[in-house]
Amino acid sequence: MFDVIGFDADDTLWHNESIFTITQEKFRELLYSHNTELVNQTLSSTQIKNLKLFGYGIKGFILSMVETSVELTNGEIKGNEIQKIIDFGREMLANPIELLPHVQEVIEDLSRKYRLLLITKGDLIDQETKIARSGLAEYFTGVEIVSDKNTETYEKILSRHEITASRFIMIGNSMRSDIVPIVQIGGQAVHIPYYSTWDHEQKHPYIDPKNFKQLKHIGLLPELIEEMR
Amino acid sequence: MFDVIGFDADDTLWHNESIFTITQEKFRELLYSHNTELVNQTLSSTQIKNLKLFGYGIKGFILSMVETSVELTNGEIKGNEIQKIIDFGREMLANPIELLPHVQEVIEDLSRKYRLLLITKGDLIDQETKIARSGLAEYFTGVEIVSDKNTETYEKILSRHEITASRFIMIGNSMRSDIVPIVQIGGQAVHIPYYSTWDHEQKHPYIDPKNFKQLKHIGLLPELIEEMR
Repeated sequence: MFDVIGFDADDTLWHNESIFTITQEKFRELLYSHNTELVNQTLSSTQIKNLKLFGYGIKGFILSMVETSVELTNGEIKGNEIQKIIDFGREMLANPIELLPHVQEVIEDLSRKYRLLLITKGDLIDQETKIARSGLAEYFTGVEIVSDKNTETYEKILSRHEITASRFIMIGNSMRSDIVPIVQIGGQAVHIPYYSTWDHEQKHPYIDPKNFKQLKHIGLLPELIEEMR
Repeated sequence: MFDVIGFDADDTLWHNESIFTITQEKFRELLYSHNTELVNQTLSSTQIKNLKLFGYGIKGFILSMVETSVELTNGEIKGNEIQKIIDFGREMLANPIELLPHVQEVIEDLSRKYRLLLITKGDLIDQETKIARSGLAEYFTGVEIVSDKNTETYEKILSRHEITASRFIMIGNSMRSDIVPIVQIGGQAVHIPYYSTWDHEQKHPYIDPKNFKQLKHIGLLPELIEEMR
């Protein structure tokens, strides 16, 4: 029924959003004199405002934290505090990759039967080093790092790899980035929610739930794939 | 004699280094109480130190400017000054693309006779929007944005596009990124120096000058390509 399985990486194969959550916690502690809700809201709106120029990824997130701290302190925050924020980001970039449960065996298993593609968005260098550090690179016949995941991006990737949409299935945790665009171009998709997802990734056009599958964890994927054949 | 021509983008097809030079000038003005040479040296060493984690590109450059300003003021610089530095970066990212002389006609001309590949390094989203804004995207059969340009990257690109190295020629302004690695893997290369090149791009292993060509400007390229056939 399909030739190629596409996998999202962050929060599908390994933990990622959790590092952002931990960093935001440290960031709030740094700005302890400010209301938690106000810090969260200002950071969130700064991030959304900056997405178009900075893109997804940790460097843009660091810059958004710095801007938030300047805004909330009316420009009074000092350089050594700003350096702490940049160092939070540095830690994020150097953070060890922690695979989600079942990932190693599922990817190994499926790579014997199907061509696997890794499709991830964010900063080029950051995603590249994460893939290298994950130890999973060898199981994928192709790795695609894109600035955004929409119908156009997926169409380009499928055409470059000479894959028919109807014979492609995408696995990921984000409805907005991994599921909706694939269903919209006539592909299949399996949504595996992560316990925490950035609000921005939750906003997406409605698609009929009949048009994609949902699983509790990736360990159940090989069985589903067998059923769908 | 060759099937495919590869082009570097920044400082080969359009001005880029000049925007960094202008921004560094503004950055020095902001830190006016500090010795110019010290500002340049600190920024340069911070950039090199950060390359591995932040990669090439404007976001990493902004973060390096911020860190330099914190270091030089012993952490005393204030948030509103930091915001000015981030805004310098924002201006860089939104800067209009200015093609170098002859580029438009040379690319148009060569695209009728050869497959052209655009091979550029830096931040994904930044390079993508620059290519889109340049108006040149339609002339290239492929665009490759990479985090670094070395023999391994080029080998991957050539293999993905099924190009034999000996039938590939690369055009660019950086000896380190565009010329040396291509010559090392058995390809051909034309070096077209830009009037200003970041020191880092000037450092490279020695290669025999017989193994690549050099031109004063890109307007002379079609004639050279004809001679080389």
